[in-house]
Amino acid sequence: MAKVINGQSLPNIPWQEKTNTEDVIWRYDQNPIIRRNPAKGCARVYNSAVVPWNGEFIGVFRADHLNGVPGLHVGHSKDAINWEIDPTPISWVDDKGNACTPEYSYDPRLTKLEDDYIVAWCACHDGAVVGVGKTRDFVHFERLPDATLPYNRNGVPFPRRIGGKYYMLNRPSDDGHTPFGDIFLSESPDFVYWGHHKKVAGRIGQNWWECTKIGAGNVPIETDEGWLLFYHGVGNTCNGLIYSIGAMLLDLEDPSKVLYRTNNFILTPEMPYEVSGFVPNVCFPCSALVDADTGRIALYYGAADCGTALAFTTVDEIIDLLKNQ
Amino acid sequence: MAKVINGQSLPNIPWQEKTNTEDVIWRYDQNPIIRRNPAKGCARVYNSAVVPWNGEFIGVFRADHLNGVPGLHVGHSKDAINWEIDPTPISWVDDKGNACTPEYSYDPRLTKLEDDYIVAWCACHDGAVVGVGKTRDFVHFERLPDATLPYNRNGVPFPRRIGGKYYMLNRPSDDGHTPFGDIFLSESPDFVYWGHHKKVAGRIGQNWWECTKIGAGNVPIETDEGWLLFYHGVGNTCNGLIYSIGAMLLDLEDPSKVLYRTNNFILTPEMPYEVSGFVPNVCFPCSALVDADTGRIALYYGAADCGTALAFTTVDEIIDLLKNQ
Amino acid sequence: MAKVINGQSLPNIPWQEKTNTEDVIWRYDQNPIIRRNPAKGCARVYNSAVVPWNGEFIGVFRADHLNGVPGLHVGHSKDAINWEIDPTPISWVDDKGNACTPEYSYDPRLTKLEDDYIVAWCACHDGAVVGVGKTRDFVHFERLPDATLPYNRNGVPFPRRIGGKYYMLNRPSDDGHTPFGDIFLSESPDFVYWGHHKKVAGRIGQNWWECTKIGAGNVPIETDEGWLLFYHGVGNTCNGLIYSIGAMLLDLEDPSKVLYRTNNFILTPEMPYEVSGFVPNVCFPCSALVDADTGRIALYYGAADCGTALAFTTVDEIIDLLKNQ
Amino acid sequence: MAKVINGQSLPNIPWQEKTNTEDVIWRYDQNPIIRRNPAKGCARVYNSAVVPWNGEFIGVFRADHLNGVPGLHVGHSKDAINWEIDPTPISWVDDKGNACTPEYSYDPRLTKLEDDYIVAWCACHDGAVVGVGKTRDFVHFERLPDATLPYNRNGVPFPRRIGGKYYMLNRPSDDGHTPFGDIFLSESPDFVYWGHHKKVAGRIGQNWWECTKIGAGNVPIETDEGWLLFYHGVGNTCNGLIYSIGAMLLDLEDPSKVLYRTNNFILTPEMPYEVSGFVPNVCFPCSALVDADTGRIALYYGAADCGTALAFTTVDEIIDLLKNQ
Amino acid sequence: MAKVINGQSLPNIPWQEKTNTEDVIWRYDQNPIIRRNPAKGCARVYNSAVVPWNGEFIGVFRADHLNGVPGLHVGHSKDAINWEIDPTPISWVDDKGNACTPEYSYDPRLTKLEDDYIVAWCACHDGAVVGVGKTRDFVHFERLPDATLPYNRNGVPFPRRIGGKYYMLNRPSDDGHTPFGDIFLSESPDFVYWGHHKKVAGRIGQNWWECTKIGAGNVPIETDEGWLLFYHGVGNTCNGLIYSIGAMLLDLEDPSKVLYRTNNFILTPEMPYEVSGFVPNVCFPCSALVDADTGRIALYYGAADCGTALAFTTVDEIIDLLKNQ
Amino acid sequence: MAKVINGQSLPNIPWQEKTNTEDVIWRYDQNPIIRRNPAKGCARVYNSAVVPWNGEFIGVFRADHLNGVPGLHVGHSKDAINWEIDPTPISWVDDKGNACTPEYSYDPRLTKLEDDYIVAWCACHDGAVVGVGKTRDFVHFERLPDATLPYNRNGVPFPRRIGGKYYMLNRPSDDGHTPFGDIFLSESPDFVYWGHHKKVAGRIGQNWWECTKIGAGNVPIETDEGWLLFYHGVGNTCNGLIYSIGAMLLDLEDPSKVLYRTNNFILTPEMPYEVSGFVPNVCFPCSALVDADTGRIALYYGAADCGTALAFTTVDEIIDLLKNQ
Repeated sequence: MAKVINGQSLPNIPWQEKTNTEDVIWRYDQNPIIRRNPAKGCARVYNSAVVPWNGEFIGVFRADHLNGVPGLHVGHSKDAINWEIDPTPISWVDDKGNACTPEYSYDPRLTKLEDDYIVAWCACHDGAVVGVGKTRDFVHFERLPDATLPYNRNGVPFPRRIGGKYYMLNRPSDDGHTPFGDIFLSESPDFVYWGHHKKVAGRIGQNWWECTKIGAGNVPIETDEGWLLFYHGVGNTCNGLIYSIGAMLLDLEDPSKVLYRTNNFILTPEMPYEVSGFVPNVCFPCSALVDADTGRIALYYGAADCGTALAFTTVDEIIDLLKNQ
Repeated sequence: MAKVINGQSLPNIPWQEKTNTEDVIWRYDQNPIIRRNPAKGCARVYNSAVVPWNGEFIGVFRADHLNGVPGLHVGHSKDAINWEIDPTPISWVDDKGNACTPEYSYDPRLTKLEDDYIVAWCACHDGAVVGVGKTRDFVHFERLPDATLPYNRNGVPFPRRIGGKYYMLNRPSDDGHTPFGDIFLSESPDFVYWGHHKKVAGRIGQNWWECTKIGAGNVPIETDEGWLLFYHGVGNTCNGLIYSIGAMLLDLEDPSKVLYRTNNFILTPEMPYEVSGFVPNVCFPCSALVDADTGRIALYYGAADCGTALAFTTVDEIIDLLKNQ
Repeated sequence: MAKVINGQSLPNIPWQEKTNTEDVIWRYDQNPIIRRNPAKGCARVYNSAVVPWNGEFIGVFRADHLNGVPGLHVGHSKDAINWEIDPTPISWVDDKGNACTPEYSYDPRLTKLEDDYIVAWCACHDGAVVGVGKTRDFVHFERLPDATLPYNRNGVPFPRRIGGKYYMLNRPSDDGHTPFGDIFLSESPDFVYWGHHKKVAGRIGQNWWECTKIGAGNVPIETDEGWLLFYHGVGNTCNGLIYSIGAMLLDLEDPSKVLYRTNNFILTPEMPYEVSGFVPNVCFPCSALVDADTGRIALYYGAADCGTALAFTTVDEIIDLLKNQ
Repeated sequence: MAKVINGQSLPNIPWQEKTNTEDVIWRYDQNPIIRRNPAKGCARVYNSAVVPWNGEFIGVFRADHLNGVPGLHVGHSKDAINWEIDPTPISWVDDKGNACTPEYSYDPRLTKLEDDYIVAWCACHDGAVVGVGKTRDFVHFERLPDATLPYNRNGVPFPRRIGGKYYMLNRPSDDGHTPFGDIFLSESPDFVYWGHHKKVAGRIGQNWWECTKIGAGNVPIETDEGWLLFYHGVGNTCNGLIYSIGAMLLDLEDPSKVLYRTNNFILTPEMPYEVSGFVPNVCFPCSALVDADTGRIALYYGAADCGTALAFTTVDEIIDLLKNQ
Repeated sequence: MAKVINGQSLPNIPWQEKTNTEDVIWRYDQNPIIRRNPAKGCARVYNSAVVPWNGEFIGVFRADHLNGVPGLHVGHSKDAINWEIDPTPISWVDDKGNACTPEYSYDPRLTKLEDDYIVAWCACHDGAVVGVGKTRDFVHFERLPDATLPYNRNGVPFPRRIGGKYYMLNRPSDDGHTPFGDIFLSESPDFVYWGHHKKVAGRIGQNWWECTKIGAGNVPIETDEGWLLFYHGVGNTCNGLIYSIGAMLLDLEDPSKVLYRTNNFILTPEMPYEVSGFVPNVCFPCSALVDADTGRIALYYGAADCGTALAFTTVDEIIDLLKNQ
Repeated sequence: MAKVINGQSLPNIPWQEKTNTEDVIWRYDQNPIIRRNPAKGCARVYNSAVVPWNGEFIGVFRADHLNGVPGLHVGHSKDAINWEIDPTPISWVDDKGNACTPEYSYDPRLTKLEDDYIVAWCACHDGAVVGVGKTRDFVHFERLPDATLPYNRNGVPFPRRIGGKYYMLNRPSDDGHTPFGDIFLSESPDFVYWGHHKKVAGRIGQNWWECTKIGAGNVPIETDEGWLLFYHGVGNTCNGLIYSIGAMLLDLEDPSKVLYRTNNFILTPEMPYEVSGFVPNVCFPCSALVDADTGRIALYYGAADCGTALAFTTVDEIIDLLKNQ
């Protein structure tokens, strides 16, 4: 049985038992948990990231403002299901205290790394880059030097050093609605300078659900079998792109090595709130909560770019699927 | 408090009070008021224009016929909510009485101008042009010389001369699903020859909801603060265009000057009948009724290119928003 | 009154009377009859073909597997409404018994031809081709030489020889989401060599619902007025393609001659299960059951590329429409 | 024999006899007459217009500056072959004397109209429009209101009123390297307001040399057989567009009527200076000199967007070709 | 040493010795042998095919007419270098003597097959197809049923039956400037019905000179080592496509098998008449003369779509290269 | 007068005096210095870099092989004009001595940095990246970790540390013929990890010659006025891209600051060997030699992607132009 390593007990993780024994992952029956216009000035909240916080929960959320431009907002919740989104966006400052909030920000990930909470997101800086910053109190946010050149999106830092180095998954992109995309890994001695870039996993032409592009989702979950990563895979039809969810297990010591990877999607847009919306047919995972004791996972995903939804699984079931498919 | 000028009392304007005090514009709760197949031979009616008529209401409607080609139809209503659409399209004749109905016609606007009702619409004439014509009885329709060269759409004549000249908003386009679009103003001494073209307002790259194109909606409403115009703004996503609604106030004497303009959309596709349909994610305003006594506005908009919907606001609230945002 | 020729009595054909006397074709009120995930490993079943079988019914179905790739599956039904889809795909062998199932397969048609049931479908063979094969028991399936070069789709064999020759409708395509498409007819002395290709019917620019492409649907129904064919017509909007259904009547002796053809669509996406889904706005007919005694037709069509739906009409009504429009 | 009407004697028109009796139009053997870098700051001069001037010649030239941006420059010549291009661009002022030179200007035409020399060119004004202006001395240039909305190019005013009205050929375009283009005619009572737009001539799909777009070239030459117009026709190949030259004869009283039009190009890129250059394979006519006494024509055309070339013909020969092909 | 089989002595084949001992194929030093405007009404002659004829030579030539549309013309030559092109295009009749010359025709190949000379070319028939026809005297030309559906080009029939069947190389295409292309082989019992299609050779992504598309050139030359075929390979750059020449050897008994194929181009556009022209950077082989006694080959190729050029090699040298690279 | 800093005496730098006193940069009159097929197996040599070497010269050259794929080759020259290109490509090894030559390599730059010669080039590694490597003898070449993620091109390392850090100019790109491009600067403590990325200079829409993309050329030349950089600027026309040359001066201490930049191109394709070729209209600078004593510069640039050319200027003249334009 697979075990979570370096994790924490999370007895109050959101949870529902599954009803169909064939499901490896199953949706929360009250989805979406965040609907349109959840806060003043915020039209749509989705593609967001949460962590445990003082016995409750906190998160960094993508909110599309009323001018259509996305920004990052803090949100609080007692149960990780009902969220209160702060109507004021995060204000970034640099290490000298100067304001440096980018023109737009979206699709944040949130990584507890040493003493900081690292936010990695798609920031605007002469094009879309992986912006990174840190906070300890979710009140003061310090922006670090961008981790990549343009054009890059879906940067996901690992939650600890490996062999003394920091690592971050990311996806080289272009300056539009990028028609390609593979997952890469970058390495850093100091979280400022990055190098030794390697390709981790590519789109797979034979799997139509992920033949156009793929990108990392949650902060990888450390288990004794490897790093567990949910990712989005994108296929295309004559009427648009379809974003589904898959999973992979990366080597603990060398996370550029894929040990196992789902051949099939494990969740694909089927519910009305996933099939229809601002961008139809999107399930986009950005974050997962894990209870180290039970291996329960609550996976947060954006739904049709206009809501946030929740699905459940366990470390054991998903690794079992990965190893035995 | 802003006042309507040169308007008429319209005590029977459709109306519902708002329920959420933060709304500046709110939807009719029985939307859409015109659904698919409202008349024999008419599959979809939307993007249309209405005016008061002998104590009741009349309008010119875009109806997509069963071969998919759009035409213009007259419709009648006692309450401006329940409409009877004439299954026979309007027959245009020229000034000599010769038939000259174009191959296709869509997105009409209806302007009471001196003794005539002017119809301005997207007509086919060696490409899409702003066709114009007039009627006094909604039975006989005389087509005038087209107001523009191809390719132009969304022509909206002003309801009176300004400084002795006629004016019309319009949008230069191309020969396809135009990927750009700004609002221009053209001037005429006689409604036949047009010149002194000026750009009034452009798409705004920083406002993602209107970064691709914009176009004039209703016949501008004359107020003591300026001409009030609702317009559509178009943003784009990886799965298609999104049409939202904004507003602006133009200078009374020089309507090429924008006095105020909404930075945010005021209505964006959120309801199922707006998000899903023949063209998903479209709210397209073409016409407004106004009661000069109360300043109440009933805004008609096309919903997902397959239905007609209604929203409410007041001259005061919308101008207040424009001036104080 | 038009009569079915060479048909069979099918008293247990699925049927509902129409409720609106203006309908020429009307939907089954329990649509879609096949919904998402109908069998283990099958995410979406649509664009499929059925025939009567020993007093019950059998069919060959397109099923998108969990990796997104489509394959062909047999399905059984007692009432032609409730279908049991075999979770294992069809295994093709060549005439020497060697396995030759293609990498992907989709949009099958099923033609009873002499002693065989012919399957014609879009097979992968250095690109998309019209694959053909035969079975007598729906257990053993023998693949024949592909009938066309790449790129071709929507091959539909006629159910008998005409003037001693075999005929098949088909649509030359390209290697992507083909932006054009007309219906052609190919002729063969032996179902192996094909020639004398002729264009039967093209897209019609003036009919916006079918201005982008058209393709044959069901196996043509032989009547004393001609071969009755339902087909799909595709129009395009700024937010994607729209697949509607039309009909035509082909000359009995020379099926390259179109005797009559609907100017309007007879069914277009309007219901939620047609307007929204994996590919929004798709009604794609692939198969029809006919009762020779009453002329009742049950038309099967794919709905939004994620479900299978049913509509009803009669030979008489549809031919009446074709001849008198 | 066709005669020039309302023309002037031009005994010093550039001229060479033809050497091949089959030529209807023949090139000057010292082409190009203007080569790269003809004046300080001017990299390329082409697509330009000339007129007789006090016994010598004068013209308005498109010069691409060293930053790549095109502007209009005056040029002088004694023989209409050797040109001195003024290194300083034309400075436009409006009717109040305010400077109003557009950001870029290109492809001018020059029409003697009543007491003025009218310059019509592609000006930048919220997109490419037909800019118009006038001069009497080629020192002071007054800009008039733009004659068209964006996007329009290749405006060519007629040299006199017809039936009391002014006329101008033009070509509706889009905002890029327009992939379509037909010739339209606009009418004006005052050279300010324009209306009664009509299509004069379109691209012809069957003539591959002009199947993509066409546009008017020189100021039409008045003859007793009609207005003689040279135009450019554009075909496309897998490696780019090809600009050739054709001719047409328009009705004297109603110049929207094409009396005759060449089916074949009369000159197509063949010489090294036409086939290779800044834009390979371009012959683009903008201007013609005519000697009313002999009917000799000197046609000026841009060569590969980097030089100016000259070709010869006579009114008689070209009209003979038009009428007898 | 490789030997030509079933060939004929051709002592008067055009020939020049090579001057650089490293060349495997070398250009004629008087290229191009056919320049622009070689016959009245013919602007460009290229991509054409020739055969020996009564001690002299004859051919079928692609000529772009003065309207830009290509047609087929007969040409005669005493030395196979200096060609007289017939200004009148070939008139095709069907087997009943009715005229059936297509709207356009291009890129012919010429195969002596049994008693006939077969012309195979890109004909227009509801799209581009491989048209085929025959002649015995180059005066009367009978068109056969088209060998393929649209869209197909570069059809090249083999010069004899193999195992009792006819064979033809061809290339499935699309309806534009096709961005892909591989060589297929079709089989026929009677030159009317075609089937058993197989892919022979595809573009090769790693070889940039042929990574976009490839197509068969000359009628395969029968040797004791296999069928020798020259083909064109197309690469692409930021400024257009580049057409180079390669070679392959096909199995004598099963010509769908490639025995050897050049990894490198053997001739690529380098000379001014190849690099610059109507379509820059094109060397397009369509035909070869062979002397069975010496193995000398004269390869004809289109140069920049505006001239015809000649290159030399020997059966021995080219097969040596193929086997030993 | 501007002075070269940290440079070396180079009395044998190639040189010709200018003949036209208005030239700021002038071409070598024997251009191109490297023509097609300069070495066995090398079809085209261009976009390459050279340095002084033991009193003579050495370089790393892009050579397109006969399969069209580019590789890097060493070349030697006594006079820096006549080059002998090694027919064998450079073999890269990693720090353990394992072979790691990429699938393709192009557009190298060569920087003397401390004790090494650094090669930076466009390498293939899961897409186009800036590959970097080092040599001391031009015989053994060690590849370092790639400096960037895909997609990036035109990496140019600075010749010394600045403030203790290494710097490299580079251009983020996409996976095709990138339609955009700006110059960025990346910083590194160790030439392995890179960060603190900043945009240095962007394309300029108003300068048509550089409105599409720009990229760094030579290794920056250190002067007392700043770092002197030649760069390529790309404009676009209806028939393709045009690559011209500009210059800029970067701040000595903070090379992300542009002190001066040419508004105009200083050299643009005009000569036949630049205007016509494998890719028409390309002048692409990659390398410069400088004589510290006289300030003479010999600038090497690729010509039409099929030859290498040389132009001359002096540090003084070019800085004078930059400061006084």
